[in-house]
Amino acid sequence: MSPRAKAGGGIDLGGTKIQTVIVNRRNEVLGQARAATPRKGGPKAIAAAMAEVLAEAGENAGYATADLTGVGVGSPGDVDAAAGTVSSAKNLSGWSRSFPLAAVLSDELGTPVALGNDVQVATTAEFELGAGRPYDSVLGVFWGTGVGGGIVLDGKDWLGRGAAGEIGHMVVKRGGRRCPCGNRGCMEAYAGRAAMEARARKLAGKGRKTVLFELMEGKGKDRLTSSVWAKAVKQDDKLAVKLIDDAVKALGAAIASAVNLLDIEAVILGGGLGIRFGGLYGPEIERRVGKNLFDAADPPAFRVAELGDLGGAVGAAQLAAR
Amino acid sequence: MSPRAKAGGGIDLGGTKIQTVIVNRRNEVLGQARAATPRKGGPKAIAAAMAEVLAEAGENAGYATADLTGVGVGSPGDVDAAAGTVSSAKNLSGWSRSFPLAAVLSDELGTPVALGNDVQVATTAEFELGAGRPYDSVLGVFWGTGVGGGIVLDGKDWLGRGAAGEIGHMVVKRGGRRCPCGNRGCMEAYAGRAAMEARARKLAGKGRKTVLFELMEGKGKDRLTSSVWAKAVKQDDKLAVKLIDDAVKALGAAIASAVNLLDIEAVILGGGLGIRFGGLYGPEIERRVGKNLFDAADPPAFRVAELGDLGGAVGAAQLAAR
Repeated sequence: MSPRAKAGGGIDLGGTKIQTVIVNRRNEVLGQARAATPRKGGPKAIAAAMAEVLAEAGENAGYATADLTGVGVGSPGDVDAAAGTVSSAKNLSGWSRSFPLAAVLSDELGTPVALGNDVQVATTAEFELGAGRPYDSVLGVFWGTGVGGGIVLDGKDWLGRGAAGEIGHMVVKRGGRRCPCGNRGCMEAYAGRAAMEARARKLAGKGRKTVLFELMEGKGKDRLTSSVWAKAVKQDDKLAVKLIDDAVKALGAAIASAVNLLDIEAVILGGGLGIRFGGLYGPEIERRVGKNLFDAADPPAFRVAELGDLGGAVGAAQLAAR
Repeated sequence: MSPRAKAGGGIDLGGTKIQTVIVNRRNEVLGQARAATPRKGGPKAIAAAMAEVLAEAGENAGYATADLTGVGVGSPGDVDAAAGTVSSAKNLSGWSRSFPLAAVLSDELGTPVALGNDVQVATTAEFELGAGRPYDSVLGVFWGTGVGGGIVLDGKDWLGRGAAGEIGHMVVKRGGRRCPCGNRGCMEAYAGRAAMEARARKLAGKGRKTVLFELMEGKGKDRLTSSVWAKAVKQDDKLAVKLIDDAVKALGAAIASAVNLLDIEAVILGGGLGIRFGGLYGPEIERRVGKNLFDAADPPAFRVAELGDLGGAVGAAQLAAR
């Protein structure tokens, strides 16, 4: 047993990367590590990678995983926190059926493991520790590969029947563009990075000029990352600017719809693209929200997430502490 | 003092009519009365009419208003329940500034008066006494002159900062049709009776054939009431069918957006058009909702309001009983 202060672990399981942190009781980050999410091998391979990356964060902080008071996981898919299982994680390799993630990880790490929905966990972290601190009710909007949403109402997570927060699948254009989810006109069909990349590939294939794919290759990537988009926009690439503009408009319309329905105190913009573009495009998203607010005289506060890339993992660690 | 059982009053203040009821403690309607909402004279004239129509319901039930345990009012506009005031009631004549409705009515009626938002009051009534009884969380959608929404989450009204529930102003088509609220692409721009009528007048003015206005005049009305729409649809009037179809699609998209965000247990369709067309168009609205649900395998229950035209007034009476 370690004589040092108690610490817990947090794992943010994403479609492209696994981010882990070790935090003390004041939620200060003592160590962190990240790695790519395995694209093969299904839930078992992913769980093994999660344990490995957390152990690495532990080493960086000077803790063995078995010495942690507990570990929390923010996961995509359908999370059954009580049962400790995850199913239907569409962004992850071979993860359709229910997998007992909490039990498998707990065995591997030698400490209790708690599960939560990734976006809700990140929203709660911003609510308690980040940009949402001054408010009682917030909507978290996580703009990345997809666009996820988390809801806190009067200080409590709102999960509905377990699947609330799908702001990316609010309709912004009835009969509009096909979304990766299969439906038409979802906000994510315009604003999700995966949908934006598919659209860019299609238009480039039809001969539209763009530096997006050169930049991608130059960075040794096989997908259009946030930094590729940022660089293309800096170079004033017309296609990149147009697609980001479409994304901003779609985000504005969906966030306005959510605010008209919930009359929430604050909107917090996070996620890979949200954090990278919050400064540049945040004001324009906010202006777009204003154009569709029913009560434009009394808009909610609009903030960029403060916990940055580690927010999801820090939120997951909080989950274990509760 | 009357020796009879205790009874309370409820007033549903609408843009076109004032509906009042007298109910006993089991929420059974003992008497009711309705009248047109004054279109001149501002809040004072409207408050005087409300008192008069409630007194008429009282006579029908055998109660003087001063013998009622209390009276509740469901009002449009910004309702400050604690202060007993209503402001910004855009559907009502000359009612922009704050008016002390509770105090004025209470003086007139000789009994305490409680105020609530009209749509929320009707939603709570359905939740407690009507179609929402089996559920913990419901979304009320009131399809009438406009389209209002009420939200109950885990048994409690969700009002946000006081203006939640504006489902009619969720965006279903970014940059789409101009809404009576001034914004573009709101659901109400396609589905609200006022917007539908404005659209019908515009298209008829351009030469589109329709029986809508003949039917209206035949019924001695100066606006397209629910019954006029119903009759035109029965006669297979192409314009009426097309406009109702647009409304159904817009309702479906906005309700799906709301469900994707809140993952609510049940949707309850009410309002003048909702109650009249719930049987005929409810299944099609439900099908349209399904087309845009993120989790189409697990849709919410879809119910037509059970308390009918009196739901708002009965809900208002409940407000006084609490």
